[in-house]
Amino acid sequence: MVAPEVLKRAIAAQREMALALFARLAEGSAGNPGIIRDTYGTGENFGHEVFAQAARAAGLDIQRDAAANTYASWVGLDRSRPRILMGSHLDSVAHGGNFDGAAGVVAGLVVIAALRELGLQPQCDVTVMGVRAEESVWFEVSYIGSRSALGTLPDGALENRRIDTERSLAEHIAACGGDPERLRRRERFLDPANIRAFLELHIEQAPSLVEAGYPVAICTGIPGNFRFPNAKVTGRHDHVGTPRRFRHDAAMASVAFAKALDEIWAEHEAADIPVAMTFGRFHTDATKHGLTTVAGAFHFSLDVRAYDTEVLAKIEARLPAIVDRIEAERRVEFDLGQRASSAVGLVDRDIVAGFTEAAARLGVRAMPLGSPASHDSAAFAAAGVPSAMLFVRNENGSHNPDERMEIEDFLDACAVMADWVAHNAT
Amino acid sequence: MVAPEVLKRAIAAQREMALALFARLAEGSAGNPGIIRDTYGTGENFGHEVFAQAARAAGLDIQRDAAANTYASWVGLDRSRPRILMGSHLDSVAHGGNFDGAAGVVAGLVVIAALRELGLQPQCDVTVMGVRAEESVWFEVSYIGSRSALGTLPDGALENRRIDTERSLAEHIAACGGDPERLRRRERFLDPANIRAFLELHIEQAPSLVEAGYPVAICTGIPGNFRFPNAKVTGRHDHVGTPRRFRHDAAMASVAFAKALDEIWAEHEAADIPVAMTFGRFHTDATKHGLTTVAGAFHFSLDVRAYDTEVLAKIEARLPAIVDRIEAERRVEFDLGQRASSAVGLVDRDIVAGFTEAAARLGVRAMPLGSPASHDSAAFAAAGVPSAMLFVRNENGSHNPDERMEIEDFLDACAVMADWVAHNAT
Repeated sequence: MVAPEVLKRAIAAQREMALALFARLAEGSAGNPGIIRDTYGTGENFGHEVFAQAARAAGLDIQRDAAANTYASWVGLDRSRPRILMGSHLDSVAHGGNFDGAAGVVAGLVVIAALRELGLQPQCDVTVMGVRAEESVWFEVSYIGSRSALGTLPDGALENRRIDTERSLAEHIAACGGDPERLRRRERFLDPANIRAFLELHIEQAPSLVEAGYPVAICTGIPGNFRFPNAKVTGRHDHVGTPRRFRHDAAMASVAFAKALDEIWAEHEAADIPVAMTFGRFHTDATKHGLTTVAGAFHFSLDVRAYDTEVLAKIEARLPAIVDRIEAERRVEFDLGQRASSAVGLVDRDIVAGFTEAAARLGVRAMPLGSPASHDSAAFAAAGVPSAMLFVRNENGSHNPDERMEIEDFLDACAVMADWVAHNAT
Repeated sequence: MVAPEVLKRAIAAQREMALALFARLAEGSAGNPGIIRDTYGTGENFGHEVFAQAARAAGLDIQRDAAANTYASWVGLDRSRPRILMGSHLDSVAHGGNFDGAAGVVAGLVVIAALRELGLQPQCDVTVMGVRAEESVWFEVSYIGSRSALGTLPDGALENRRIDTERSLAEHIAACGGDPERLRRRERFLDPANIRAFLELHIEQAPSLVEAGYPVAICTGIPGNFRFPNAKVTGRHDHVGTPRRFRHDAAMASVAFAKALDEIWAEHEAADIPVAMTFGRFHTDATKHGLTTVAGAFHFSLDVRAYDTEVLAKIEARLPAIVDRIEAERRVEFDLGQRASSAVGLVDRDIVAGFTEAAARLGVRAMPLGSPASHDSAAFAAAGVPSAMLFVRNENGSHNPDERMEIEDFLDACAVMADWVAHNAT
């Protein structure tokens, strides 16, 4: 086994390589402000190109699957053994930050480079996966890249349309060199039985680590969610002077709905049950609204997430009564639209224990933390792959241009992951 | 004096003329759906053209002022006597209805035509005014046409920009043949001391008459308002999983604000104090919002109206504490933006008494009703002109394509107005 100081030095030696990769990614996907690596579009393609070039230059073995995910393997002595996967997604939200997703791919390259420089040789393949299409804002489907690779993409997802281009997921995949027909036949590139572990490093998407003063967290769970991406409320457009008893005000009905959900969230908060509710889009109809018109139409998206399947089910069960009450009080109609959901993601206890021991050995201060966000790891866990995550301290949240990760914190997390890989692959 | 039956018959004889005018107006300003007579734009210009042509064909004397308002006069025996004005606006909201505004202009033509056919001769001028720019949604200033004519347009209004074209009011007025420089010098076309009355017939903009089963209402007051046409709330865009304590959610802060105002409204409602509050525009930022992003920016318009200046002042005085509380609780910043307002409009008691007597004479069932909406009459009343209004039953509210006025109800209201004019001008 490698001594902790030696491993840390080998990781530290990758600092410039990591910084250079982050800089190239940011330059090539500038979004003014922030960055845009649009799912199955120019920005994400650029991310995969940068990743593949770096991996090829490092002598790794490159593969692509039917969903255009990119794999870069450090070939093991026995390729038939279950492989270790490290990785994350290379897409981003519009005007997001440079680290959300990409840090997990760069980390995989850092880990392999460090272990190779130490002269280690893996028994199994150690593969970095650049995952496609994790940001569900584009196609309103979760985990498209990872679930395509695992053969678990839900029915109909290939027909979903990207919210901006209005072209289907199948068309976008084909345009990026993938093969939607193979996905339709559920041909899978990855066999869960043949994966030893899926390890994902990711920036933290809230400032819990900043608040607690820790550089790294070991994930204890990934939330599941239910979503209504395209809900609408129909009332009646009326004159601004219309008395209250005659109104069918879709805006105030939506306000009442959001307030009711917010109160449910506050209840859970008081009971220390972690939940999050987000009305990301919440708006009157821009073609008809105005200063002097009561809103007759309203649109919103809702995302409700929790670490406990039962908590989610109980919250969702309360919605019909809330909707009925508001419809009666406000004389409007709710149509929550198509429902989407993803399962609660369980992390592998053994890998968590391994990460915890590794952090202790290396002197990396790591705390346990529930992920606030969804991650591809949840799709791997759902397919039966032992999965785990490391979070890196990040000052300003994510999905915005101001995310901020210190390279030292990132390298600390890489060291923990490298230690685990060294113990389990060599 | 004319016998009530004779007057009613003379009014009924104008039915086809009125229907033809409404049809011409609707045809030429179709908005798919509804109609669009945009303020100082193609639609409103068309309305003034139709009005002027009809008035010219009827042999009335046509004038235009520096704000491009149109006047059609039945010339009196002594033109120096204070004149009687009838009229309303010829603009509309986008995708509004055909009667909101225009009915008051057509009514003026109907009244004059009926009285002339009876062989009457007025002592003073009896003038129909086609008022410009009443719909404040376009320039976010109230009563532009009437206040321009009266020399009471507020400072700076000529520099306001139309929300869609982004060209200034001055530019729009000039493009419609008006003279903004004369308005800037506050040259007024109408001298309040020289106006005997301003009479405005308008569709009711709520279904109170439908509810009560009356065809006509005599207005008891016009609400004043205060407005924040362009308020915004700034928080921070964050990942959808961000825990509650870290959020700066501009959407939920705006929901809390709207809910607080709605509760104030409900309080007034319970105390039987008529108030109305409208968040006509209420929306996340379309360039940045998304299913998986906590909203960092929110925009809304607010209109608060009441019949009592003190009620308005007391409500407005409560806003700062609400804003402070929500800013602290939700970690956001409110900027209510530029404030606009218009004064409570008092109706002339003598004209109301005259209308009431006329309705009784004619057997027209008319009830007293506070106007839910603002009207040009309020601008005339504020300038010291004795002003009054008649409302016509209307099934489906206004500012929408579904407004519905029966021609019989309209003619009933015209008869009441004609009776008053016959008693006061001849």
